[in-house]
Amino acid sequence: MLGSTHGTLTTDSRRARVIACGEQPSPVVHGRPADVDDLDVSGRPLYAGVPDLDRFFRPGSVAVVGASDTEGRPNTGITRQLMAWAERVGARLHPVHPTRRSVFGLPCFPSVADLPEQVDLAVLLVGDPLAVIGELSEAKVKFAVAFASGFAETGAEGAAAQDRLAAAVRRSGLRLLGPNTNLNAFERFRDDLEGPAVALITQSGHQGRPVFAMQELGVRLSHWAPTGNEADLETADFISYFSERPEIGAIACYVEGLKDGRSFLLAADRAARRGVPVVAVKVGRTEAGARTAASHTGKLTGADTVVDAAMRQYGVIRVDGLDELQDTAALLARARAPLADGVAVYSISGGTGAHFSDLATAAGLRLPDLSAAKQAELHQWIPEYLSVANPVDNGGHPVGDWRGPKIIDAILADPAVGVLICPITGPFPPMSDKLAQDLVDAAERTDKLVCVVWGSPVGTEAAYRETLLGSARVATFRTFANCITAVRAYLEHHRFVAAYRSPFDEAPRTPSPSFRKAQALMRPGQQLSEHAAKQLLRAYGIRVPREQLVTSAAAAVRAAGLVGYPVVMKASGAQIAHKTELGLVKIGLTSASQVRDAYRELTDIARYEGISLDGVLVCQMVERGVEMVVGVTHDRLFGPTVTVGLGGVLVEVLRDTAVRVPPFGEDQARGMLRELRGRALLDGVRGAPPVDVDALVEVVLRVQRMALELGDDIAELDVNPLMVLPRGQGAVALDALVVCR
Amino acid sequence: MLGSTHGTLTTDSRRARVIACGEQPSPVVHGRPADVDDLDVSGRPLYAGVPDLDRFFRPGSVAVVGASDTEGRPNTGITRQLMAWAERVGARLHPVHPTRRSVFGLPCFPSVADLPEQVDLAVLLVGDPLAVIGELSEAKVKFAVAFASGFAETGAEGAAAQDRLAAAVRRSGLRLLGPNTNLNAFERFRDDLEGPAVALITQSGHQGRPVFAMQELGVRLSHWAPTGNEADLETADFISYFSERPEIGAIACYVEGLKDGRSFLLAADRAARRGVPVVAVKVGRTEAGARTAASHTGKLTGADTVVDAAMRQYGVIRVDGLDELQDTAALLARARAPLADGVAVYSISGGTGAHFSDLATAAGLRLPDLSAAKQAELHQWIPEYLSVANPVDNGGHPVGDWRGPKIIDAILADPAVGVLICPITGPFPPMSDKLAQDLVDAAERTDKLVCVVWGSPVGTEAAYRETLLGSARVATFRTFANCITAVRAYLEHHRFVAAYRSPFDEAPRTPSPSFRKAQALMRPGQQLSEHAAKQLLRAYGIRVPREQLVTSAAAAVRAAGLVGYPVVMKASGAQIAHKTELGLVKIGLTSASQVRDAYRELTDIARYEGISLDGVLVCQMVERGVEMVVGVTHDRLFGPTVTVGLGGVLVEVLRDTAVRVPPFGEDQARGMLRELRGRALLDGVRGAPPVDVDALVEVVLRVQRMALELGDDIAELDVNPLMVLPRGQGAVALDALVVCR
Repeated sequence: MLGSTHGTLTTDSRRARVIACGEQPSPVVHGRPADVDDLDVSGRPLYAGVPDLDRFFRPGSVAVVGASDTEGRPNTGITRQLMAWAERVGARLHPVHPTRRSVFGLPCFPSVADLPEQVDLAVLLVGDPLAVIGELSEAKVKFAVAFASGFAETGAEGAAAQDRLAAAVRRSGLRLLGPNTNLNAFERFRDDLEGPAVALITQSGHQGRPVFAMQELGVRLSHWAPTGNEADLETADFISYFSERPEIGAIACYVEGLKDGRSFLLAADRAARRGVPVVAVKVGRTEAGARTAASHTGKLTGADTVVDAAMRQYGVIRVDGLDELQDTAALLARARAPLADGVAVYSISGGTGAHFSDLATAAGLRLPDLSAAKQAELHQWIPEYLSVANPVDNGGHPVGDWRGPKIIDAILADPAVGVLICPITGPFPPMSDKLAQDLVDAAERTDKLVCVVWGSPVGTEAAYRETLLGSARVATFRTFANCITAVRAYLEHHRFVAAYRSPFDEAPRTPSPSFRKAQALMRPGQQLSEHAAKQLLRAYGIRVPREQLVTSAAAAVRAAGLVGYPVVMKASGAQIAHKTELGLVKIGLTSASQVRDAYRELTDIARYEGISLDGVLVCQMVERGVEMVVGVTHDRLFGPTVTVGLGGVLVEVLRDTAVRVPPFGEDQARGMLRELRGRALLDGVRGAPPVDVDALVEVVLRVQRMALELGDDIAELDVNPLMVLPRGQGAVALDALVVCR
Repeated sequence: MLGSTHGTLTTDSRRARVIACGEQPSPVVHGRPADVDDLDVSGRPLYAGVPDLDRFFRPGSVAVVGASDTEGRPNTGITRQLMAWAERVGARLHPVHPTRRSVFGLPCFPSVADLPEQVDLAVLLVGDPLAVIGELSEAKVKFAVAFASGFAETGAEGAAAQDRLAAAVRRSGLRLLGPNTNLNAFERFRDDLEGPAVALITQSGHQGRPVFAMQELGVRLSHWAPTGNEADLETADFISYFSERPEIGAIACYVEGLKDGRSFLLAADRAARRGVPVVAVKVGRTEAGARTAASHTGKLTGADTVVDAAMRQYGVIRVDGLDELQDTAALLARARAPLADGVAVYSISGGTGAHFSDLATAAGLRLPDLSAAKQAELHQWIPEYLSVANPVDNGGHPVGDWRGPKIIDAILADPAVGVLICPITGPFPPMSDKLAQDLVDAAERTDKLVCVVWGSPVGTEAAYRETLLGSARVATFRTFANCITAVRAYLEHHRFVAAYRSPFDEAPRTPSPSFRKAQALMRPGQQLSEHAAKQLLRAYGIRVPREQLVTSAAAAVRAAGLVGYPVVMKASGAQIAHKTELGLVKIGLTSASQVRDAYRELTDIARYEGISLDGVLVCQMVERGVEMVVGVTHDRLFGPTVTVGLGGVLVEVLRDTAVRVPPFGEDQARGMLRELRGRALLDGVRGAPPVDVDALVEVVLRVQRMALELGDDIAELDVNPLMVLPRGQGAVALDALVVCR
């Protein structure tokens, strides 16, 4: 609901607000923890409520609208499954059907209005759920699930029908799951498994199956929310709800498209504050994939780089495969916080240790050398000629006897080691069966994470099925890659959570003093002249070169004297593109006569090309630094985003840029710079001095402020180039392009 | 053996050769198919023999030296396994032991000399294999296997022992596997499986286990060569041998280090000529991994980027995980050549289709839209509202009835489709069991590749274990990622093989006319002056600016007149580094007086800095183009390699370079340019004209010729910058650094 309306609301509500006074905005945004009705300065909410879904997942009473017991009808099978589920969760089930008297021996009611009690949940097996929303509302039903398809996933007509359904639901007071969903929420969950559970949210029933099947491998699953078309309840609602449930250790999501960018971020923020890991597959790595996914559930897709950045900002762990989703979510749900971030690799083969360590190191895991004392201790049990520095290679034999457990305990006792990984690529029962049991036993004695890779492609071995999967303390994987992905996510999640500060607490709620000045400069639907664009930047405290806009050669010479030689002169006017290519820029002018000539030439070219000017800019020449680009781009899903990248011809060729979704703090602005492949340029190469990174960060934050305050009125904003000068000397916007919406 | 000696041999043998006459080398290398004794101009072999290993893998008679039947001794278990293996392969087995009369009832001989027949293979279970090599040689034993460890993997002393063993083996005439190897070659292989087999080569027994276990999933394995320390027989020998065996469909390798770069390339070349795919895990993605691997089997590791490039040059498919190795090798062994390179994705869930297609497209697979006629045909059986363009989403129901096989056949009949992939993420027996069977049946009716992803993490389902794994015509995977990796490798392999021309057939055998000129310029152990380095480039037909080396101001003015204003002037001398930083370069000089001043200033600075000059270069100013770098670098494993990259400050910051191992042809030179992230610069950006790519390619090939002819005498060669001018105008080496060894 937020998504469909805030685009128009924001501008008005923001403009109506009183504008505080002061000289310039602070580049760092400030605020206080958000409350229910708070909006940020862009008009987007700073708070999302947590729907109380207890009675959805564990209702006291359920109505099945469209229930059937006629064999061969699809609704009959569904009714049977719902009855079994209701019995398991202790809910009273009431069939509803206009003509049946009873269904499977239960009394059947002609309509929802005739139900014997107020029900928590109505499962709608009817083709047109819209027709019963009114009845459900009158009967004060709390939740409904609509199975019917034929809505947004089928095209424009279906989307309109879905909008009507959504509107009716909004008016009704009930919360709806679907349409185009299924029975997944009412599956049979294993109740014999203990420990923290995984909760599952999927936008496709089939795609959730493998995570659901993890229960057969001993991983507890507590909930499955198949969100379908999300006419009302969306992925974000379930993330928020699951984040508050004590039994849930991790949330696994399969996402094809998001209903609204901000509501997703607010839910991810809630999970991050609570320290609950969210692991997500998000379809849309390619344009083609995004299109296919959109046609499947009729949802929005933003640029994938923006989705990726937004997820990282809030610590959502994005993976590509359903197998990675399973393995990563299971590990994060069950493992305690790490006691150290060092990983020790232990194997019965030097080859396995070398291979695993190589891949783990390449993926960024840290394998510290074990201390000399620890190595000496290990060499009590492991022959001297084998390396035990990390990876620890035991050569095989020690696992078969009393030395096996001692080695494992000794490695785990090392304070630098937070994670022990033992890759076993092939079963050799005399060794691998005992090794598996020793690892399971050792895991019971430690608070550290013990991981095993069972590399056999067969997977029917007892050591795997019974010993390893039988332990909730050992994390078992089938491939090196999935183990490494999951362990990296585990360590990164805990680092992220420990350092997390919600940007929503710091987000600005009211326009800065700059906003009024900026408003006066905006020209809806137009591209601003360079001079106006630079005034806009100045309004937000971004430094531009000393410059004057002049309309005569004599004024140009006077301006050059004030600005200081040498000067640059450029034609300035709205809608001018490709200034340099047209010859509308003159650089390195060192005398009054050169300035006079340049003025004449620039105005001649403009006349000749039919370009109308607001004048000629006479600008200070800025000494060389590193050229960067900072800009604002609109994303369909997340709204205005802030981009920073290397400037010049590089921007076009290498697209070496980083993006963030506002609001974000200084840490994220610095993180953007770390993401640039060419970041070493900022430190100075070939004898160049390091540049003023602090000033660059400040510009990024000031541009963020512009994105927040003006973003919905700006089609495009590019500070290009931003010349970042040597350390301590600041950064200067040499040119800027601003196109108003 | 090649590896240890050619470094010194080459230089001499090359220098002794007669030098043909002519003006300049052709940049494209020419030759004829290589013969046994052929060497390229660098002195490296152009041909590697194929050891006849038939009697190693299928000996008529075997001696077990150190046989035992005393319970509890390790050799007893080994002897028992060897007896069982000998019986399976029909070999006569003779135990050898100085004191035993019989072993397990077989007559035992005191020494190899006492054997009753000339044996094909001797398995050495003794601690010191060197001690028996002489005896084996006298007894004309063809092959030996040495299990003993304690050689190169243990350090310098062990390496020396291994060198002695290798030398004895070279003198003996027998071929040795090991030392530090094991029983893997003598495992029990399933003989009930049909179709093309996978052959396995590993440098670690444990790491080969998962590939070996694929037999339990129905994949035929024909051989396992556990190469251990490779004192004699090496990975390359087995690749060559397996490439010639008709029953082998693919070769799977686990490689920690290579014994010799060239012998590996010659083996890979043989496999490429025969169209036999080689799939390899090569440890060494990281420095740490390479070090650990080297300590495990005591082998060489080159730079990983060079290994990567060399493998790609010869079509070796490099993968990272053992699971990828299994899945890719199995697919490549069994699948026939593709009839088209289009991939069709078919699923019972729109979500699955969208997700799989997204990842497949991101990985570079081509999913063509099915034709309108084909879509209409599919809509006979699939509801209109579901998309069948590709991915084909059947919505589930049609798989359950007669429509299922029709849909599969119809997709396979599309001429644009070469591969059909059906991802089934979760088992739902009423649908997935029949779907699995339909796919197996359809695969029997088609020559196209049918792949299935069985996404259930459980893997004990009958549809997977029996139906899918029971078919040798369907390729079954457990994860999207492995399916995509394998299918991409399959399509790329067949594309590669179809276009393959061996660079060894084209490699130059004799020095070009340039070589004699070049020799006169080389200064062992020194860095050449810029002028000398440029003369070296000119000798090889690489264009340099018009320039003159002068030793007086007056001569400089005359030179400038000849070269043409404006000119660049640079101090020239051996051992000068950082010319620009020292102020030893003056650009844009437009008059005689500027030239005179510049001459004075350059010589003053040199005097002041204590730099001895061979003169001052007066050079033509070259109009702007794109700055590139072309160079030669030494790799420990492969020798001289050729690198091309973007020039200027970019080289240092982004390391945007591509590398190739000589010899290579023009196709690879062009391929290098395609690998550059900044390649768009060559096409012209921001209105710049496209540059002369042909001239750039020619320079790369001429530098390759230098690498081949001078490579072992050059420590470092960098043409930097090479200014590549607009199309048709060539490329000019503006500066060059050459350091002689």
